[in-house]
Amino acid sequence: MKIMVIDPITTKEWLPRNRAYFERIADEGTEVEVAFLEKGPKTIETFHDVVYAGPEILRIVRDRENETDAFIINCCSDPGLYAAREITDKVVLGPTETSMSVALHLGFKFSYISTLKKTAPRVRLQAIQLGLESRLASVVNVNITVSGLEEDPEKTVQAVVCAAEKAIDRDGAEVIMLGCTGMAELARMVRDRLNAPLIEPALVTFKMAELFVKIGLSHNRAPGKMYSLAEADKIVGYV
Amino acid sequence: MKIMVIDPITTKEWLPRNRAYFERIADEGTEVEVAFLEKGPKTIETFHDVVYAGPEILRIVRDRENETDAFIINCCSDPGLYAAREITDKVVLGPTETSMSVALHLGFKFSYISTLKKTAPRVRLQAIQLGLESRLASVVNVNITVSGLEEDPEKTVQAVVCAAEKAIDRDGAEVIMLGCTGMAELARMVRDRLNAPLIEPALVTFKMAELFVKIGLSHNRAPGKMYSLAEADKIVGYV
Amino acid sequence: MKIMVIDPITTKEWLPRNRAYFERIADEGTEVEVAFLEKGPKTIETFHDVVYAGPEILRIVRDRENETDAFIINCCSDPGLYAAREITDKVVLGPTETSMSVALHLGFKFSYISTLKKTAPRVRLQAIQLGLESRLASVVNVNITVSGLEEDPEKTVQAVVCAAEKAIDRDGAEVIMLGCTGMAELARMVRDRLNAPLIEPALVTFKMAELFVKIGLSHNRAPGKMYSLAEADKIVGYV
Amino acid sequence: MKIMVIDPITTKEWLPRNRAYFERIADEGTEVEVAFLEKGPKTIETFHDVVYAGPEILRIVRDRENETDAFIINCCSDPGLYAAREITDKVVLGPTETSMSVALHLGFKFSYISTLKKTAPRVRLQAIQLGLESRLASVVNVNITVSGLEEDPEKTVQAVVCAAEKAIDRDGAEVIMLGCTGMAELARMVRDRLNAPLIEPALVTFKMAELFVKIGLSHNRAPGKMYSLAEADKIVGYV
Amino acid sequence: MKIMVIDPITTKEWLPRNRAYFERIADEGTEVEVAFLEKGPKTIETFHDVVYAGPEILRIVRDRENETDAFIINCCSDPGLYAAREITDKVVLGPTETSMSVALHLGFKFSYISTLKKTAPRVRLQAIQLGLESRLASVVNVNITVSGLEEDPEKTVQAVVCAAEKAIDRDGAEVIMLGCTGMAELARMVRDRLNAPLIEPALVTFKMAELFVKIGLSHNRAPGKMYSLAEADKIVGYV
Amino acid sequence: MKIMVIDPITTKEWLPRNRAYFERIADEGTEVEVAFLEKGPKTIETFHDVVYAGPEILRIVRDRENETDAFIINCCSDPGLYAAREITDKVVLGPTETSMSVALHLGFKFSYISTLKKTAPRVRLQAIQLGLESRLASVVNVNITVSGLEEDPEKTVQAVVCAAEKAIDRDGAEVIMLGCTGMAELARMVRDRLNAPLIEPALVTFKMAELFVKIGLSHNRAPGKMYSLAEADKIVGYV
Repeated sequence: MKIMVIDPITTKEWLPRNRAYFERIADEGTEVEVAFLEKGPKTIETFHDVVYAGPEILRIVRDRENETDAFIINCCSDPGLYAAREITDKVVLGPTETSMSVALHLGFKFSYISTLKKTAPRVRLQAIQLGLESRLASVVNVNITVSGLEEDPEKTVQAVVCAAEKAIDRDGAEVIMLGCTGMAELARMVRDRLNAPLIEPALVTFKMAELFVKIGLSHNRAPGKMYSLAEADKIVGYV
Repeated sequence: MKIMVIDPITTKEWLPRNRAYFERIADEGTEVEVAFLEKGPKTIETFHDVVYAGPEILRIVRDRENETDAFIINCCSDPGLYAAREITDKVVLGPTETSMSVALHLGFKFSYISTLKKTAPRVRLQAIQLGLESRLASVVNVNITVSGLEEDPEKTVQAVVCAAEKAIDRDGAEVIMLGCTGMAELARMVRDRLNAPLIEPALVTFKMAELFVKIGLSHNRAPGKMYSLAEADKIVGYV
Repeated sequence: MKIMVIDPITTKEWLPRNRAYFERIADEGTEVEVAFLEKGPKTIETFHDVVYAGPEILRIVRDRENETDAFIINCCSDPGLYAAREITDKVVLGPTETSMSVALHLGFKFSYISTLKKTAPRVRLQAIQLGLESRLASVVNVNITVSGLEEDPEKTVQAVVCAAEKAIDRDGAEVIMLGCTGMAELARMVRDRLNAPLIEPALVTFKMAELFVKIGLSHNRAPGKMYSLAEADKIVGYV
Repeated sequence: MKIMVIDPITTKEWLPRNRAYFERIADEGTEVEVAFLEKGPKTIETFHDVVYAGPEILRIVRDRENETDAFIINCCSDPGLYAAREITDKVVLGPTETSMSVALHLGFKFSYISTLKKTAPRVRLQAIQLGLESRLASVVNVNITVSGLEEDPEKTVQAVVCAAEKAIDRDGAEVIMLGCTGMAELARMVRDRLNAPLIEPALVTFKMAELFVKIGLSHNRAPGKMYSLAEADKIVGYV
Repeated sequence: MKIMVIDPITTKEWLPRNRAYFERIADEGTEVEVAFLEKGPKTIETFHDVVYAGPEILRIVRDRENETDAFIINCCSDPGLYAAREITDKVVLGPTETSMSVALHLGFKFSYISTLKKTAPRVRLQAIQLGLESRLASVVNVNITVSGLEEDPEKTVQAVVCAAEKAIDRDGAEVIMLGCTGMAELARMVRDRLNAPLIEPALVTFKMAELFVKIGLSHNRAPGKMYSLAEADKIVGYV
Repeated sequence: MKIMVIDPITTKEWLPRNRAYFERIADEGTEVEVAFLEKGPKTIETFHDVVYAGPEILRIVRDRENETDAFIINCCSDPGLYAAREITDKVVLGPTETSMSVALHLGFKFSYISTLKKTAPRVRLQAIQLGLESRLASVVNVNITVSGLEEDPEKTVQAVVCAAEKAIDRDGAEVIMLGCTGMAELARMVRDRLNAPLIEPALVTFKMAELFVKIGLSHNRAPGKMYSLAEADKIVGYV
């Protein structure tokens, strides 16, 4: 089984560490590939950044689908998720869709720890789309940019723990979802200090992709359905 | 007042007719400009097409915002709507967001006449995001592609009227919303044959943009809000 | 075009100022007429007051519909709105229905600044009816009666700004809707002090009425629909 | 205990039969009084009719509250219900609010048998306000006016049974609610032919009023609450 | 009329006081019987306790249905409520289902005063099932176990009043529902100190059961419906 | 890793086939154990049956939790799911909770193929509790009892395929969820004839349990949370 992780950003210096992370969590027998974008945003923090990540995500899916069993779009905005499903029969998962549904099994309500305050409406809209808004206790931000998350890991961990405790004590959260895949490598440190289940979205999504491939489950792509085939040759000016 | 209509597709042969349409409906004193994309989809029918329309929409907004009072993104998928609001203080409206909210005033439930069957889930998700799903009676398709809408106008008009009547009789719709701005010029013929209010989204959205400019109302772009400023210089490889 | 503003109260001394306000905001070519009630409540603050405003609103609509293109029922309780639509083919708009739907375009959630605390449940019910409750961040009151709003304008403006800031900071509102058309003339002063879009309902509703008339859009009054014709001659004892 | 039934219409020839009905269902020791309006609609079928019923309903409540323990506003539009609660400490119930909540105990979903097709949106809005829309299977009409219900009782009974069976078989209803208190006296005949619980709203509401009085439960009328005191002296031109 | 109150716990020493309570509130002519469980939980505070109460509740219903007109399952978890309705044609009511629907008539939102903090998610799920979540202002606990409620009645009353006032002042509740039938006998003392309607669930449910029997209304038990007959002989190992 | 499958019924003759099924789908290194009940229902088709399955499910969880990493309660009613989570730190999953959340990733709406018509309200309530009702297209039954499913496998497969096609064509389902774990072994034959993703709940739930154990994720059992510890010694008369 081969799983392709698409990091929908251009900051390629994060590639080695990122690949190592996924290789560590992969099942024996799962091959991991990690791709970054040639063109697009350095990090994703806005609707604007999501727009610029889109075309390259789809190019990678199209280029690599023959040799891949499942794609993960490794950003909590789930950029291009529905579009990617329109151009491949392979499994395509996004961390927020996956994590929010997994949260249902772990406790009553979950909170989402975001990087910036501005993210909250986007997260609520994602939850509303999935029908899960009534299970979203709150979105609490740590006020650190994505690129700043790893500058001072200890400070980030403290900020995440503090936000999570606010979510638990003030908002009644029973489950904590990290709201940025850039927090993946710090998740273990957060988990040790937290008295609640912690969802690390990159981890959960990767394992779910393995699961879907193993049991042969994929998206409905019949004509007339949400993810039915998009005609690629309608696009002008993109290779 | 100057309003820029962005047709988020590359099919420039539609430009003259399109410009004529908006000039006809503009208030005296409103200047109209119409822009098509240099790169992107020929028409928009899928999530995939929306992705490829995005970067050029934002480029146009950025290039032209100094000389423009309001932008309309003239496609019922509302592509790039939230992202565009992040990069300009000017009004930016999309036809589905505008039309669905106007439908509230005209009758109890509305139906959306789409081109293709595949569109229905996307429309329901848009309604869910706005909180208006309980007012959406149904999505009924005419099974004609966007580019086919004007091939045989009489046939298209018949198909739209037939779909609308199904929505009214079978689904209890009291208001009909055309689900593609490519149906704009046929709207009058549809209206004449229909015993229900008909929302032509391009028309409604253009007039609403004039209204917003006139009364000086625009989106909240304060820090930490949904549409707060996106940093443009984070993007690599796009001009 | 002629628009009739129905102030559904008996406090006629507000007429000149009110007429001046609408004349100032009207498009060139729009004729404004303002009517107050002969019988009914001095101001509207309760369900009880709404009841007593109803018959006279309908009488005015019936008496004046021939010479009028659109009616505005100028009170945020939207008294008699649905009933008025049952007796005329002309456009009839109410400030809360209109403003809540316009708020959708300006930011994620909106708050409603009410006069009295008692108003909050009524406002929530209005939002629930429109399907927009998930976009209503809060209802915050200034604890000033309608008739007291203009006693000390500066104090009222301060109270409104203070309530709006509470809505923004505490409740996450991105858009502020004034909750009484009696605040119309103070809106400009509030706007200058507020870092968020401010919806003045009388203004928005009047301009929307102009828009509806211009593009020829009105309510569905076909038999069996929500606003189908009410039989006027079933009423006994009212002229 | 004394319960006042307000028939919010002017068709006083129905009074004797109506009084007999309530006297038959009253507990021993419950005194029944029935009042019709001096001014207002002959029957209630529209939002318009509701408006004209309002002032007289409130007059009766105000005039008679000293000698009364509970009021029933005996029409399925629940006209003036919230307003009446603002002017008396006594229990005030309306048949739709009461019946929809009782339906929760009898089966999964209920359907509402209305007189005219036009009624359906109003009923859905009532259910939405109460939060019970997900339990409303459908609104099915018999296409008979209120005043026509008793013209040919057997025909009405057949039409109601037929509509109820459609609701059960087609819409999955498990409980049937009659949608007009004018059907009260025919309810028994309907019940005999129907294989589902039948809610006769006048009956259920009257018995619930007795229950509330017996256990001393009434509405919250504290300052700032939904039903807090309305100032009666703000009304001009009504006695 | 005979009503059987099933106290779904094994703490039989509460029987005499409990029977006295119901006899005091019963209508003249209503015979009361109170049954406790032979096997099961001492008190009900968890989903776990609910499980162990179930088989005995059903045994009692089955054993006693011939001589009974209505059953009350006297615990706010409503244990076994739907199951009991599957095995008898008699009325079966549970205090939370009944009380939440009665709360609709008394004010805008209600709060639920629970014993332990852990109860809140269960209560929210009950409200969600009934469709009434939007009317549930909050769940506030007194942090006293069920068996501790009567240890120091004055302390319990104070804690309940304090929790109710928090619900009213902080959460906007207009109606207070006691969240444990073990608080029944203290309800009067709470009511005297509270400026809001207080729902004592055991009382309301008992009176509602009388009402249902009087007017001959019961659950839909036709084949294929929610409460259609369960086959008792499928059970192995229970008598 | 050891996973315990609890078949919450007493029909032990299904054990060998059932164990073989789970052994076939288990990851290498996962040990499977299958337990049936000593006492309880032969099959589960009603709320009543669920009640009688409960105590034994909890007994097995308690008896076996030391030697087990995760429990599956292998019935689509998810009997005792929340209660079991209150008495163990190990993962406990139920097929409907798991399958409904997995359905979110595969297409827009899903339908549930039930055995009997009576099941539909229970399924809707489960979806409502999870917040996923808006994604549930329909519940379609095959009108075969659980014990009848394997009597004529080909007939059952045909009935399931026919029900699924009705769900797809009539109700707009994009994903099909089998609504009984007794259909597990027939799933492959259904899948071959169906043009839509098919969720076999026993399979999905077992693999999800493996996933949760692998990544160390379990339910929140802190004090005051939904699944916090239930006191086992409060139970009388059960061993």
